[in-house]
Amino acid sequence: MSFNTFGHMFRVTTFGESHGVAIGCVVDGCPPLIPLDVAEIQRDLDRRRPGQSRFTTQRQEPDAVKILSGVMAHPETGVQVTTGTPIALLIENTDQRSKDYSEIKDKFRPGHADLTYEAKYGLRDYRGGGRSSARETATRVAAGAIARKILPEVKVRGALVQMGPHKIDRGKWDWDEVARNPFFCPDKDKAAFFESYLDGIRKSGSSIGAVLEIVAEGVPPGLGAPIYAKLDSDLASAMMSINAVKGVEIGAGFGAAELSGEENADEMRTGNNGTRFLSNNAGGILGGISTGQPVVVRFAVKPTSSILTPRRTVDRKGADTDILTKGRHDPCVGIRAVPVGEAMMACVLADHFLRDRGQIGR
Amino acid sequence: MSFNTFGHMFRVTTFGESHGVAIGCVVDGCPPLIPLDVAEIQRDLDRRRPGQSRFTTQRQEPDAVKILSGVMAHPETGVQVTTGTPIALLIENTDQRSKDYSEIKDKFRPGHADLTYEAKYGLRDYRGGGRSSARETATRVAAGAIARKILPEVKVRGALVQMGPHKIDRGKWDWDEVARNPFFCPDKDKAAFFESYLDGIRKSGSSIGAVLEIVAEGVPPGLGAPIYAKLDSDLASAMMSINAVKGVEIGAGFGAAELSGEENADEMRTGNNGTRFLSNNAGGILGGISTGQPVVVRFAVKPTSSILTPRRTVDRKGADTDILTKGRHDPCVGIRAVPVGEAMMACVLADHFLRDRGQIGR
Amino acid sequence: MSFNTFGHMFRVTTFGESHGVAIGCVVDGCPPLIPLDVAEIQRDLDRRRPGQSRFTTQRQEPDAVKILSGVMAHPETGVQVTTGTPIALLIENTDQRSKDYSEIKDKFRPGHADLTYEAKYGLRDYRGGGRSSARETATRVAAGAIARKILPEVKVRGALVQMGPHKIDRGKWDWDEVARNPFFCPDKDKAAFFESYLDGIRKSGSSIGAVLEIVAEGVPPGLGAPIYAKLDSDLASAMMSINAVKGVEIGAGFGAAELSGEENADEMRTGNNGTRFLSNNAGGILGGISTGQPVVVRFAVKPTSSILTPRRTVDRKGADTDILTKGRHDPCVGIRAVPVGEAMMACVLADHFLRDRGQIGR
Amino acid sequence: MSFNTFGHMFRVTTFGESHGVAIGCVVDGCPPLIPLDVAEIQRDLDRRRPGQSRFTTQRQEPDAVKILSGVMAHPETGVQVTTGTPIALLIENTDQRSKDYSEIKDKFRPGHADLTYEAKYGLRDYRGGGRSSARETATRVAAGAIARKILPEVKVRGALVQMGPHKIDRGKWDWDEVARNPFFCPDKDKAAFFESYLDGIRKSGSSIGAVLEIVAEGVPPGLGAPIYAKLDSDLASAMMSINAVKGVEIGAGFGAAELSGEENADEMRTGNNGTRFLSNNAGGILGGISTGQPVVVRFAVKPTSSILTPRRTVDRKGADTDILTKGRHDPCVGIRAVPVGEAMMACVLADHFLRDRGQIGR
Repeated sequence: MSFNTFGHMFRVTTFGESHGVAIGCVVDGCPPLIPLDVAEIQRDLDRRRPGQSRFTTQRQEPDAVKILSGVMAHPETGVQVTTGTPIALLIENTDQRSKDYSEIKDKFRPGHADLTYEAKYGLRDYRGGGRSSARETATRVAAGAIARKILPEVKVRGALVQMGPHKIDRGKWDWDEVARNPFFCPDKDKAAFFESYLDGIRKSGSSIGAVLEIVAEGVPPGLGAPIYAKLDSDLASAMMSINAVKGVEIGAGFGAAELSGEENADEMRTGNNGTRFLSNNAGGILGGISTGQPVVVRFAVKPTSSILTPRRTVDRKGADTDILTKGRHDPCVGIRAVPVGEAMMACVLADHFLRDRGQIGR
Repeated sequence: MSFNTFGHMFRVTTFGESHGVAIGCVVDGCPPLIPLDVAEIQRDLDRRRPGQSRFTTQRQEPDAVKILSGVMAHPETGVQVTTGTPIALLIENTDQRSKDYSEIKDKFRPGHADLTYEAKYGLRDYRGGGRSSARETATRVAAGAIARKILPEVKVRGALVQMGPHKIDRGKWDWDEVARNPFFCPDKDKAAFFESYLDGIRKSGSSIGAVLEIVAEGVPPGLGAPIYAKLDSDLASAMMSINAVKGVEIGAGFGAAELSGEENADEMRTGNNGTRFLSNNAGGILGGISTGQPVVVRFAVKPTSSILTPRRTVDRKGADTDILTKGRHDPCVGIRAVPVGEAMMACVLADHFLRDRGQIGR
Repeated sequence: MSFNTFGHMFRVTTFGESHGVAIGCVVDGCPPLIPLDVAEIQRDLDRRRPGQSRFTTQRQEPDAVKILSGVMAHPETGVQVTTGTPIALLIENTDQRSKDYSEIKDKFRPGHADLTYEAKYGLRDYRGGGRSSARETATRVAAGAIARKILPEVKVRGALVQMGPHKIDRGKWDWDEVARNPFFCPDKDKAAFFESYLDGIRKSGSSIGAVLEIVAEGVPPGLGAPIYAKLDSDLASAMMSINAVKGVEIGAGFGAAELSGEENADEMRTGNNGTRFLSNNAGGILGGISTGQPVVVRFAVKPTSSILTPRRTVDRKGADTDILTKGRHDPCVGIRAVPVGEAMMACVLADHFLRDRGQIGR
Repeated sequence: MSFNTFGHMFRVTTFGESHGVAIGCVVDGCPPLIPLDVAEIQRDLDRRRPGQSRFTTQRQEPDAVKILSGVMAHPETGVQVTTGTPIALLIENTDQRSKDYSEIKDKFRPGHADLTYEAKYGLRDYRGGGRSSARETATRVAAGAIARKILPEVKVRGALVQMGPHKIDRGKWDWDEVARNPFFCPDKDKAAFFESYLDGIRKSGSSIGAVLEIVAEGVPPGLGAPIYAKLDSDLASAMMSINAVKGVEIGAGFGAAELSGEENADEMRTGNNGTRFLSNNAGGILGGISTGQPVVVRFAVKPTSSILTPRRTVDRKGADTDILTKGRHDPCVGIRAVPVGEAMMACVLADHFLRDRGQIGR
């Protein structure tokens, strides 16, 4: 990962600010002849789109994506396919409200990147967070939709598994439930609880953190390239690059610190389709290489920093002041990070699939 | 990070297997004219060296490092300095016991990279784990010693903060204590407890996980390059690439998921030397860029997979079998990962320091 | 250089096909606070634009560039400046004639990339050459305009120095002359000759090759990073990546093969501003690092492969056939490569300037 | 190419100075299970080794290469094969004469990298040229020997085609002749001429330039990744990175500038094994992608800058002075660059083969 590009063989470069002309990305290295319709990308984008419930920011934007390059109608079949050249995707910004930025223009919002962008670049785009806005993640979701097409046999799904201190009951995990509530929550009962819980937080103008889990099933063994291109290392990097993420773990994760060697190491037995593991504390990765088991990643998202309580801060001149950030925002930004996490998982797997195929020649 | 190289401006390429001729690394992109003595590198290596207590593997190896290139006596001062060309470091393997590998040669050890290397490459170096051995981390420590010299004003220190379910008392944190016990533990009382606790685990032939914390003080604000070269993203990648690591978190980390926006976002006040933060849940990083506060990273290390209890597994032919991995090994591999984590932190910071200087021109 | 991205610190990613929706690029790593107006980019684009004389393709396109991201009005001065985040540039395609492609759709044009794209990707965008069209070079020119702003003290200029077998008289070199004729020719007399010479070629439906020279003055000593990021190595790569280029040379170039050591090695004497070289056979580069002298690169451009003479070829089914490529095209594509060569020189120098600053800390 | 590493999937990192402890390289990304014996690497090194005739430097060094990692005996066949992990190669320096460097320590030799290393790094390793010595190219030859093993069906050969103003007669080209004379010259008569010609130059203490040609036969169509990873672009970069190279051309090269479209574009006819080209002005590459024809690259090597005639220069203090560089050196450094050019060709092809396989999945 380097500046605004990630991936080695499957490379994604993103650009754009929250309130600029447009955001977008260039997907490079995609194999040719893969059927790709803009509707497939739009479908994933729609899952991430804000304004779909009272629990996400009320920014109303269609997030309509356009494909600018890299596809054409196949000369024989007429089906639109990738050509092997860079696929540029564009999403125009249409709901940049011409609001009054005087409050935040000169003050650093606690928990935001205001102070650090200013420290690094000598200025910052204060309009909607500029480049540091979560709006950038829409372009990742778009890229992820292409990555999924490279690995049709791999199923990448995500879910919210914790909100504040409240964890889901893993025994009640139902993937079908995820699409039925606004929290991407696989536990029906907990989803019902989150509705009132988050309403309370929302009404009080506060916010809360969350933990998400992304699972990839059908990943072939052998993906990942030790030592410094380990699959888990690249997944950690990918997830940590998502806005507001403060922690990443694989399989048993931090819980592994409390386990004994007997409890942790997954035993093996011969199965119908090769080796069968008796547990998956490894999260599908050993020595940085996929085992063939589901790849399981979790990440923690901090609470939205924009809240309705006045906070102590400093302004650009270095004077003490207070700030209260009004306006639309999510009481739990973690919710909408589910499609983003899925997209990053899909991109990392696609990249490693191509790299593995290059070196090994499967 | 790409195959066996990490970093962009400060680039480290490592090579070597546990029981081969030698291990080593090439450090490229180091600024010139930095005084560098082999003793400074050796000092860091000695902190990681096994066999220093009964709690680490009894492999007896001096791990004597040689500098092959990239330094010379300064023509005026005579002091040995870097020349700006690649610095190659070599550590010869001297204690590769000619032991009997017949037990592990054809069986996949649970929790080890045996199955995955075989799945990827079609063969694996079964002698001491080959490339997947933790021995590789010695080369990172060597590289980290050079990285530290690039940022003399930054203090990178690490400590063990949890072993099994037992966490240290953070109120008793004393950095001086870290060097006084074999656990790199900053809490004197807990260190005493770990002595008997780990003895019990060691004697029973079992193992246990751990959590380590690495802290970098004196990091200037502005390091890190959004969106895909965020400082926290690169740190996550760096730490997750260390053998046996299953989770990484920054600042409040997974704990941030349980916090409200009021609790989490660090407030600011004007201080004597610029902005003063009233807390450090951010772990010194906002929007992927350093704030000037201490950079705080924690990572979880799983328990050693080589234990004295027979385990179910399969062999290379796909038949069910059992395995028991005798021989020298650490009851808690997390212990020796402290110098490794410090080295990775130092390398990531040095890389970002040079990248930031390149783009911004400080 | 990797797929559709070049540069390390100053990184340019381009996308788009000749007859698609749009072409464009993302410029990443640009320092912040550099004044940048879209008119400055447009000015360079206009120099490359086709249809300005009877000697270039009659494609009529304004090539109007838009800045999508990475700039904002400076909060204090109001001047539009770079923000340090990726600068996306877009040029919409407006003159994609809906011509009849049946002739070339199934036949491989000799000298074009038709056969090779088909061999690699299994299909090719036959509309106007798709991705292999020289139209892509417009995006390089746009990126180069930004690169020039990073190095305001460096003057990058280019000229045509040979057309077919006819070389200019270097004694008559006048930089001001370059803008006064449609050939970018610095020799007034030769420019007059080229007018009738190229008219003859154009009318006969033929084409001819050319040699261009790009000179960068004011390049500070010390740019370039041996061994595999030598300044000349990166310039060779950059120039060879331009469509139709078949050779690149630095300073004395191929002529150096005929020189003796006495003739070739540039002697030095103390000058007013540091070292003064008595000749510049090195082309401003020794050991891959700039000397402070003008950096001089020449490259050979082959003749346009689309000509009005029927040519022997094969079709997609593998059958022998003939082809005659009608339609607008340049009798000497080399002409319009001058702004492209300048842009590549500017980009390479900007990249090395930032890399050098990063490692050395000037 | 980046600092001291080149290649993307097949990556080579080199290190070491002329008169340091050792030189070497790390070859990363090599596919596993490729038989590799140290003798195969040594064979290529021996072709480059100095001191084999009176026309090359009299440095007497065995250049014995050692493999430090990345290979093992195959568990079933016992044959030594690659493991897919980094292959480190080491060549110890044994003939670093403890000569008196006082003459060159403080003076900048014209045509050498002395001034530029000093300008960039603030110091330089004056012992035998340090990092800028052609000795570094031995490590490329070693890496190239591995690259050849990845593409056993590709035959990479090189020859000297011009010395000073004297070109070979291409009609007399005989590949077998190359190994029979000390010039790598494929024209027997010209080789006889070069013997007396170069003797004259050698005895007068002068030197002369040369042009080399590297040909790769059996390259499959489809290698190369437009736009910025074109095969010719990467070859240009690779050849230009070789010491003393000042120009690179593909196929007709600079000669293409003098051709008409009719003369230049290679016509096609159906052949027994796919498409047959009627000429090869393209040098086997169209649009940056291999055509299946032989890939043909030529490069110009400047004359050795170390000659026995006093030359005007400046010293480190900036004072005018003269210099005469005594000691062993080659009257025509171009000669020994033949195995180096072959190695770079092999490495670039191997890299592109793996990258193509990754993206396309052949």
